[in-house]
Amino acid sequence: MANFKGHALPGSFFLLFGLWWSVKFPLRRYWRRGRPAQGDRLPQFFNRIDLVEGGLKIFFAFVGIMAEQFVPDGPHAHLYTTDAWVKLMNWQHSTMYLFYGISGVADVLSASSPAIPLSLDRLGLSLALFVEGFLFYFHLHGRPPLDIHVHSLLLVAVFGGAASTFLEVFLRDQPVLEVLRSSLAILQGSWFYQIGFVLYPLSGPKWDETQHDNMMFITMCYCWHYATALLLVGVNYSLVYACVRRCAGRQGRDMEIGLRKTCSSDSSSQKALLQDSDED
Amino acid sequence: MANFKGHALPGSFFLLFGLWWSVKFPLRRYWRRGRPAQGDRLPQFFNRIDLVEGGLKIFFAFVGIMAEQFVPDGPHAHLYTTDAWVKLMNWQHSTMYLFYGISGVADVLSASSPAIPLSLDRLGLSLALFVEGFLFYFHLHGRPPLDIHVHSLLLVAVFGGAASTFLEVFLRDQPVLEVLRSSLAILQGSWFYQIGFVLYPLSGPKWDETQHDNMMFITMCYCWHYATALLLVGVNYSLVYACVRRCAGRQGRDMEIGLRKTCSSDSSSQKALLQDSDED
Amino acid sequence: MANFKGHALPGSFFLLFGLWWSVKFPLRRYWRRGRPAQGDRLPQFFNRIDLVEGGLKIFFAFVGIMAEQFVPDGPHAHLYTTDAWVKLMNWQHSTMYLFYGISGVADVLSASSPAIPLSLDRLGLSLALFVEGFLFYFHLHGRPPLDIHVHSLLLVAVFGGAASTFLEVFLRDQPVLEVLRSSLAILQGSWFYQIGFVLYPLSGPKWDETQHDNMMFITMCYCWHYATALLLVGVNYSLVYACVRRCAGRQGRDMEIGLRKTCSSDSSSQKALLQDSDED
Amino acid sequence: MANFKGHALPGSFFLLFGLWWSVKFPLRRYWRRGRPAQGDRLPQFFNRIDLVEGGLKIFFAFVGIMAEQFVPDGPHAHLYTTDAWVKLMNWQHSTMYLFYGISGVADVLSASSPAIPLSLDRLGLSLALFVEGFLFYFHLHGRPPLDIHVHSLLLVAVFGGAASTFLEVFLRDQPVLEVLRSSLAILQGSWFYQIGFVLYPLSGPKWDETQHDNMMFITMCYCWHYATALLLVGVNYSLVYACVRRCAGRQGRDMEIGLRKTCSSDSSSQKALLQDSDED
Repeated sequence: MANFKGHALPGSFFLLFGLWWSVKFPLRRYWRRGRPAQGDRLPQFFNRIDLVEGGLKIFFAFVGIMAEQFVPDGPHAHLYTTDAWVKLMNWQHSTMYLFYGISGVADVLSASSPAIPLSLDRLGLSLALFVEGFLFYFHLHGRPPLDIHVHSLLLVAVFGGAASTFLEVFLRDQPVLEVLRSSLAILQGSWFYQIGFVLYPLSGPKWDETQHDNMMFITMCYCWHYATALLLVGVNYSLVYACVRRCAGRQGRDMEIGLRKTCSSDSSSQKALLQDSDED
Repeated sequence: MANFKGHALPGSFFLLFGLWWSVKFPLRRYWRRGRPAQGDRLPQFFNRIDLVEGGLKIFFAFVGIMAEQFVPDGPHAHLYTTDAWVKLMNWQHSTMYLFYGISGVADVLSASSPAIPLSLDRLGLSLALFVEGFLFYFHLHGRPPLDIHVHSLLLVAVFGGAASTFLEVFLRDQPVLEVLRSSLAILQGSWFYQIGFVLYPLSGPKWDETQHDNMMFITMCYCWHYATALLLVGVNYSLVYACVRRCAGRQGRDMEIGLRKTCSSDSSSQKALLQDSDED
Repeated sequence: MANFKGHALPGSFFLLFGLWWSVKFPLRRYWRRGRPAQGDRLPQFFNRIDLVEGGLKIFFAFVGIMAEQFVPDGPHAHLYTTDAWVKLMNWQHSTMYLFYGISGVADVLSASSPAIPLSLDRLGLSLALFVEGFLFYFHLHGRPPLDIHVHSLLLVAVFGGAASTFLEVFLRDQPVLEVLRSSLAILQGSWFYQIGFVLYPLSGPKWDETQHDNMMFITMCYCWHYATALLLVGVNYSLVYACVRRCAGRQGRDMEIGLRKTCSSDSSSQKALLQDSDED
Repeated sequence: MANFKGHALPGSFFLLFGLWWSVKFPLRRYWRRGRPAQGDRLPQFFNRIDLVEGGLKIFFAFVGIMAEQFVPDGPHAHLYTTDAWVKLMNWQHSTMYLFYGISGVADVLSASSPAIPLSLDRLGLSLALFVEGFLFYFHLHGRPPLDIHVHSLLLVAVFGGAASTFLEVFLRDQPVLEVLRSSLAILQGSWFYQIGFVLYPLSGPKWDETQHDNMMFITMCYCWHYATALLLVGVNYSLVYACVRRCAGRQGRDMEIGLRKTCSSDSSSQKALLQDSDED
């Protein structure tokens, strides 16, 4: 849907997931550290959260596909008339949503069955992001320069997210990759809104889509979006940390000890991983 | 061979290997977990399978080279006449098959001799895929846009497969990389068929090779092929899992225990690998 | 600021940090090895150094933003007039400095609070370098060839630094990556000066910005800068080594033993990490 | 030196090193495994070999620089005349040799002093290859298509070698990366000769540098060179293996046991590295 709503819909999905991740990841991290004192109930709880997250992804993907197909000017599930393809734009967007649906299925499978490789959910998300970037890349032919530019900038967040999520397949629960994934999802979400505002302004004059200064500003604006995304992630991490600290205060100090950086063990484990480079 | 059969031949090879891998990998995974109860016979069995696989690869590569050289309009092993190169297209295809033959030799060596690095087979396959992509990349000069586009899309599967197989050199038996390799091989196989149908339609009118809408559809169609490939891999994994469960049911529950996710040990091993990032 | 000073300012910052790192890294490496004999005082000391470094980064970023905004021909914090963007060049440079400021904040957080992932400082620096490269990449539209070329060469150091620092997230305290980061920072610093000298020569005639020979020389000159940067890093490492040896001489030989390559344990730890490839 | 000799000189250097590595690496691998029976003499021996190798690299780099500077039509160490740069081609080649010299210095340092990170030699070689590729990349402006094409193909071997050697910084003594490095060095060496034969044929007519068929053949020919390089590496590995087996036969069977694949320990060590993906 080449209008403001067609950009606001995926933008909201990404914003929602990005913000949710920036709450879930620190929560899981801090609770995992306190686990020695709290038994095995928590992994079960987080497992259920992952199931719900997968289910929501499938639902959102379904909503997205339906919206693209059955808006008034959509293809209504017709792919081909006697002489031409029908509304390929909407079909491409449906395909993007489809792969997020597949990612949701991988989440659910990975969280429900013990015979499924754990990291399949990361692969699913990485593929969904890659396919999104792949389709956008071949999507921009023949549009005005500013339109091409705002979508190209989006590709940085999309492919960056795909690469960082693919790394998570091998480095599961790496805190820095979690920060990266959350912030890139928020960036993508807010940038979808920005694209909507630039190409289909709700009020005021239309942007001149060929002026070079506009493109320079948009490039810089993209960086500001990312700075804001980083700020949001930082605020969420701090809030979760503060909440967890208060809860931990009531339940004794076992957990707080888990939170403390164990300097001495840190360097010895480091050594175990990198000994060949560390000892030479 | 620039006709339908010339695309169906490699397509069948890749489909065959992709489907076979999506059976072999889960089989090996589940049997490996049940090994404590079953002794050392199985590795021997899987070793023999790898030998046969390598032999088949060499045979298929030989068939491919012969077909490219000795079809009626082939070069018949002549490279150069007095004033020009003979049928370089067919020679290039022969070269691609040659490297799959080398990969087969690496498979056989790696599975037969204990003095050969185990991961040589992955390097061989990765190089074969890379050379295929390399030759295709310099192969497309001066063809119509749609022809170039369908072959460029193929490159995504080829180089993706080369990269993922190269990662397997270092992360051998990583389940997610195995899923990726199987699905990309199926994608490549089915896409070879699709190229054949598009460029040399068996019936009906020829596709308009310059129309932009056709290219947009083909890009999307490529994603659908991959979704199907993922589905096929998923179905095969489930079937293998169901079969193995039934067999295990007859042989006692030792194996089933091996299948269960060992949550507690999982987090501790995770810690061993990533302690510096996990403990901070 | 499109003049000599506008290039000398960031150049000085990068030179300073590059040279400082080439002192700090070997110092920390040698002291860490001697730690068994010296207790826990040193990590505290190095922690404080990291805090100061983060603070300096924030201060430098602030200086850079102020300089870009409030030079006589700067935008003075105005982004938009009634009909056009104001001095977008300066705004882009301010944005670059902003991300170095964020990197400084990440340094301070990572060094001060035990609840923050240790590698966040590496991610912050990597992002700051990436954003710098990202903005420079879209920054060069419509300038003369030599101008574009000298800035493109800069991108090699910037993106190389971003990639190498991102690797440090996972391979913290890897000595070779530390050498790479120090030398690339020195290269970037000295190249900013070189750009200043080429585009705004202090004396003598202006360079012909379209002559191909000039571009060939500049490419080669870039390599000479890097050779010099490597030499500087080498000299600093040697000086630190010599100083530490002298200090260690007064404090007994405990530390010297720590410095010696432990050949036997080296190969066994190597085995632990790479056993699958080493044992086959 | 734009003639046959100017390509044969570096070609011989690379061929020599590639062939030497394909002897050294298996030798070291097999002797290392037999070490439990042979004590500590061997590492000392291999250390000395690395020293000699580094010294030879410095010597070859010196020869290369002298040849480029003081051939009759060389720059004779003059960089600038009153109005133009002198023989920048030769200066660029000298710069390439210079970085191989630096790599030699890194080899010597890394092999001689225990305070130097072991992997510095890999970084040095990786940088030398990168700088070679970097200079070649900006080197090809305005030449005929075939000339550009043969040099572009060279870049695949150069950057491939740089990337694989950079991986060796972290995965030192990985057997597959050693095979890759040896074969890519031989490929580069033989391709330098091929470039010489194509651009400056010793006898017969000159190649038509604009004909598309020539470029297609050259691309394929490059793959054949690599197949030959792989064959050569394979032959050398086999020869070394056969020699070592004969020697080991005289010295008892301790070593042979070390050569045998230890299947059971292999899977357990594998588990240690990848437990999170292997256990799920």
